[in-house]
Amino acid sequence: MPHTLSEIAASLGLEVQGDGSLLIDAVAEPAQAGSHDLALAMKPEFAQGLKDGSAQAAMMWTGADWQAHGLKGAILATRPRYAMAGLSAMMDQGQGYAKEIHPSAVIDPTARIGSDVSIGPLTFIGPNAVIADGCVIGPQVHIGWNAQIGAQSILHAGVKIGAGVRIGQRFIAQPGAVVGADGFSFVTPEPSAVEKARASLGDEGTDEETAQSWARIHSLGGVRIGDDVELGAGSCIDRGTVRDTQVGHGCKFDNLVQIGHNVVIGNDCLICAQVGVAGSTRIGNNVVLGGQSGVSDNLVVGDRAILGGASVVLSNVPAGRVMLGYPAIKMDNHVESYKGLRRLPRLFRDVAALKKAVSKLNGND
Amino acid sequence: MPHTLSEIAASLGLEVQGDGSLLIDAVAEPAQAGSHDLALAMKPEFAQGLKDGSAQAAMMWTGADWQAHGLKGAILATRPRYAMAGLSAMMDQGQGYAKEIHPSAVIDPTARIGSDVSIGPLTFIGPNAVIADGCVIGPQVHIGWNAQIGAQSILHAGVKIGAGVRIGQRFIAQPGAVVGADGFSFVTPEPSAVEKARASLGDEGTDEETAQSWARIHSLGGVRIGDDVELGAGSCIDRGTVRDTQVGHGCKFDNLVQIGHNVVIGNDCLICAQVGVAGSTRIGNNVVLGGQSGVSDNLVVGDRAILGGASVVLSNVPAGRVMLGYPAIKMDNHVESYKGLRRLPRLFRDVAALKKAVSKLNGND
Amino acid sequence: MPHTLSEIAASLGLEVQGDGSLLIDAVAEPAQAGSHDLALAMKPEFAQGLKDGSAQAAMMWTGADWQAHGLKGAILATRPRYAMAGLSAMMDQGQGYAKEIHPSAVIDPTARIGSDVSIGPLTFIGPNAVIADGCVIGPQVHIGWNAQIGAQSILHAGVKIGAGVRIGQRFIAQPGAVVGADGFSFVTPEPSAVEKARASLGDEGTDEETAQSWARIHSLGGVRIGDDVELGAGSCIDRGTVRDTQVGHGCKFDNLVQIGHNVVIGNDCLICAQVGVAGSTRIGNNVVLGGQSGVSDNLVVGDRAILGGASVVLSNVPAGRVMLGYPAIKMDNHVESYKGLRRLPRLFRDVAALKKAVSKLNGND
Repeated sequence: MPHTLSEIAASLGLEVQGDGSLLIDAVAEPAQAGSHDLALAMKPEFAQGLKDGSAQAAMMWTGADWQAHGLKGAILATRPRYAMAGLSAMMDQGQGYAKEIHPSAVIDPTARIGSDVSIGPLTFIGPNAVIADGCVIGPQVHIGWNAQIGAQSILHAGVKIGAGVRIGQRFIAQPGAVVGADGFSFVTPEPSAVEKARASLGDEGTDEETAQSWARIHSLGGVRIGDDVELGAGSCIDRGTVRDTQVGHGCKFDNLVQIGHNVVIGNDCLICAQVGVAGSTRIGNNVVLGGQSGVSDNLVVGDRAILGGASVVLSNVPAGRVMLGYPAIKMDNHVESYKGLRRLPRLFRDVAALKKAVSKLNGND
Repeated sequence: MPHTLSEIAASLGLEVQGDGSLLIDAVAEPAQAGSHDLALAMKPEFAQGLKDGSAQAAMMWTGADWQAHGLKGAILATRPRYAMAGLSAMMDQGQGYAKEIHPSAVIDPTARIGSDVSIGPLTFIGPNAVIADGCVIGPQVHIGWNAQIGAQSILHAGVKIGAGVRIGQRFIAQPGAVVGADGFSFVTPEPSAVEKARASLGDEGTDEETAQSWARIHSLGGVRIGDDVELGAGSCIDRGTVRDTQVGHGCKFDNLVQIGHNVVIGNDCLICAQVGVAGSTRIGNNVVLGGQSGVSDNLVVGDRAILGGASVVLSNVPAGRVMLGYPAIKMDNHVESYKGLRRLPRLFRDVAALKKAVSKLNGND
Repeated sequence: MPHTLSEIAASLGLEVQGDGSLLIDAVAEPAQAGSHDLALAMKPEFAQGLKDGSAQAAMMWTGADWQAHGLKGAILATRPRYAMAGLSAMMDQGQGYAKEIHPSAVIDPTARIGSDVSIGPLTFIGPNAVIADGCVIGPQVHIGWNAQIGAQSILHAGVKIGAGVRIGQRFIAQPGAVVGADGFSFVTPEPSAVEKARASLGDEGTDEETAQSWARIHSLGGVRIGDDVELGAGSCIDRGTVRDTQVGHGCKFDNLVQIGHNVVIGNDCLICAQVGVAGSTRIGNNVVLGGQSGVSDNLVVGDRAILGGASVVLSNVPAGRVMLGYPAIKMDNHVESYKGLRRLPRLFRDVAALKKAVSKLNGND
């Protein structure tokens, strides 16, 4: 459905320059843009591509000389990357799910389904589940016994929501995400080798006699998730042991993330792909966990902390701290240590030369 | 379904003190416990919370002064964490799957289904599959051709079991777990760059001429899993190339774990979230692999070895060894090396000062 | 279905020696091989196992003395590992999917299904999707609106293909793989703490006032995948923001791999289990990414580069480079640095002794 350039600018609260009546079908990168695309030339280096495409209009930065690029109109934004949020929402064609409750879906008669809810083929909604107004439930989804899904949520194909999980409004779950699997909690009859190794910091105390089997601790808690949370494909948030695992408002999780039992996460955190947070750890507000990073169990990560990609946190992190490495330390200390590591071979040579020189001074030659 | 305090204690083989007739509906953390909850005050620091809740009964440690906390009764345990296994099993309300074979499930007529088996909506059981007595198969599960599932197993929503996989009794699989995907085995017509880099330890032998395409080696083996194994959400155990991939009895796998083709794992191992074990590696009994740790291919990890979180094992690990780091080394050596790494900047300054002093002694100033 | 030894050799283009009329049912490891198995004795050390089995025929290396092992016939190959590709394809019995379109599958009337396509139970094919000739679509698969699957592809149980994804011929997807989930792209109204930390290399500039919520950038691009690509269980390839995420021909991905939005991957890459490639990174041709390795966003990895297992790439990688470590550096430099790290405690002792000796030479004792 085409929009005029002026309509797009108005909906984004931005300034249009030039011909506001240009019809726009879609957005495109400058070099690939056709005559009915809005070219995304957000930075001077991106604008170089305009000459290879045939865009007549572009989104550009404040003060950009759009006429010099041969355009007929432009939308100018002080922070074009932020404008992309509204623009992309406007242009998104979605997954094409039908606006219906598909006859192949299995819906328990005790489930309560709100108004304007669509439910895809081959989905199963369990007993007493509550799906609030305006939700889009994709195909092959499972929503368990007593689970609650807030209004305007979108659950894509194959998402699995366990029994009793409570989720806020505008939740988005990508295909295959799992909320409310059992926590990983096992115990041995006598203190285990792991408990001993932690107590002794690695003393090799394990022998054949202490080998034991693992007894399961069942997860009696659930999962509680705030509003405006997004969960990536294949990501997992486990239920708590006694109390609920909790995620605050506005948190965004990328794909293949693992959140262990009893974890508590604040608001507005950004959890990148393949991150793991082990059981009972508490993560503050506005925390960023870089891709493949990990946080050990029973720790506290303060508000606004940032973990660099693949960092591994083995101790508490103060608020606002930027961490890197394995084990993760303050980013600038890490950078300094690794510079040293690279220069180690030279240091070994220097020390060898010094030993020789000192030996000579001592008359040992 | 409420139990009396005495009934709970008896079923756990533990001692009850005070009013054994108290009715208990559920368990709770001390500060959140209501008057019909059993508060879990397993340690003195947890017991502090009792004053904020309204529990009349608690599970506590041997010798705990439960009366001083205003309780009417208590169950005392010498190892309360272990008692949680039995207690949580007793209190678990499960996923609410119906005790039936749902009419929407597709069951091949050649599949053999035991007695007391329930099968969820939209599940598909393939030809000649065998589901033993007492199994609970959740919704949207797939059990492939010729696969066998042992008695009393529970397969949660969306689990996928491949053709010919053989699994023991009391298996538990969390949502989205996959057993029996094809192994990752590819070969180039001529020795590949990887084979050369391994042989030369990184000599840069690859050039444009040696670039080749990958031919697939099909997985002809299956997967064989013992009794009492649990597999986490989204975890994968691949089939073997010629022989079966094997997992012993009592192993517990957390979420998003990857077990490659031909791997052999012993009994009673604990494999934490996001661990990867590469092809043809052998893991002994009672091994613990910490979260996000990895083991390279074709290695041997001895009995009772423990890998710290995010450790990466690139060579064989002897029995009983506690390992940490990348590459993983003995935990105490790792701790010492990293202390040194932190002190490197000071060492560089010391050596610079020494060079100056020696130069002075040599009369070069 | 048995084959004669001669038929197998002919189909592999290899030489048969001895009794070519031997009937072969399956392949086996030498020690487990029965009288109708072809023993895989590809190397002298494997051939040792022949005496423990009862094979009459084996695949062996060129020049192997098969008669000395008591065999009646043998197939000899100059690169037996490569011959396994053809041999295993010949012996693969597959997943036993029925050659039919199962009546429980939900197929949108606008979808176009080629000839010789089989579609498993409880699968959903969306509007305008195109499934080319000869595809095998397993049970509980979802193929989204407008998606295209090339000829002869195999999609195993529970695979999810998003709207508009275009995939080439002979694609293989293992259970639970997800193509075309939304990219992970969020933006704050003002520059975020992460943008600042990157700009300042970790300067602790974040304070409470700058804490912001994340706005979603929708993924308007799709995913485009070439011919002969294989995707492992639970692996995810996200859609692009504006242009498509792209994967070339012949790439093989193991399980639980994460490929971010806008990533471009060349031809014939081998991406091992649990690898993560962050958004907008470009990977060349014939690149090998070892298990659990990661590549940060917006980087370039040159052709034929190799990352060792669990390496983490934080900067561009030149063509042909073998990398190891976190952060990843040239493999030989990494090995040298880590040798130094192990020898650090000794270096500290040497420097302490030198300080003492120099102090003595200066008359300070």
